[in-house]
Amino acid sequence: MMEEIKFDGNGLITAVLQDASNNEVLMVAWMNAEALRLTQMTGEAHFWSRSRRELWHKGFTSGNVMRVRELRIDCDRDTLLLKVIPNGPACHTGEQSCFLAELD
Amino acid sequence: MMEEIKFDGNGLITAVLQDASNNEVLMVAWMNAEALRLTQMTGEAHFWSRSRRELWHKGFTSGNVMRVRELRIDCDRDTLLLKVIPNGPACHTGEQSCFLAELD
Repeated sequence: MMEEIKFDGNGLITAVLQDASNNEVLMVAWMNAEALRLTQMTGEAHFWSRSRRELWHKGFTSGNVMRVRELRIDCDRDTLLLKVIPNGPACHTGEQSCFLAELD
Repeated sequence: MMEEIKFDGNGLITAVLQDASNNEVLMVAWMNAEALRLTQMTGEAHFWSRSRRELWHKGFTSGNVMRVRELRIDCDRDTLLLKVIPNGPACHTGEQSCFLAELD
């Protein structure tokens, strides 16, 4: 239930997207309550864009929507894990995952 | 390099821990620059505990340290992905992963 979810001081919750087929971590983004509601209602990942300050239906323009197969929450109830079936690359660079760069 | 990493307004960066053996997402926590430096220096995950407001060497007391096999950063350079070899359960409940609860 929505009241059991701990949004942060900005009304946001961190969401990790994982490819349901191979468990690759695709991206991390943030949801507000409305983005979470739309995600649950439509079965496609919605976020709150912190840079654009607007709701963001991931893949709405590119077609690379992320269909949600499982929606999990962690033990602290302040982070979400979405197992998704990507309809295309998650990353704006065209790569499947946003996490391709090694640090150092 | 440290200057290429985008810490947020609180000096923190989100870090996703993933089991290197099976790609299971174990937990999400936050690092400040010092936690990241210690992680890179020791090869074991360190975080900034937002609730206790202190550096946190994960597993220091329990023995369940998270040995870092890969350290990746996303395309925005504001989120980290650590592929780790867990020396025990990641979750304080004793479960391997913090993400066992389904939402709804």
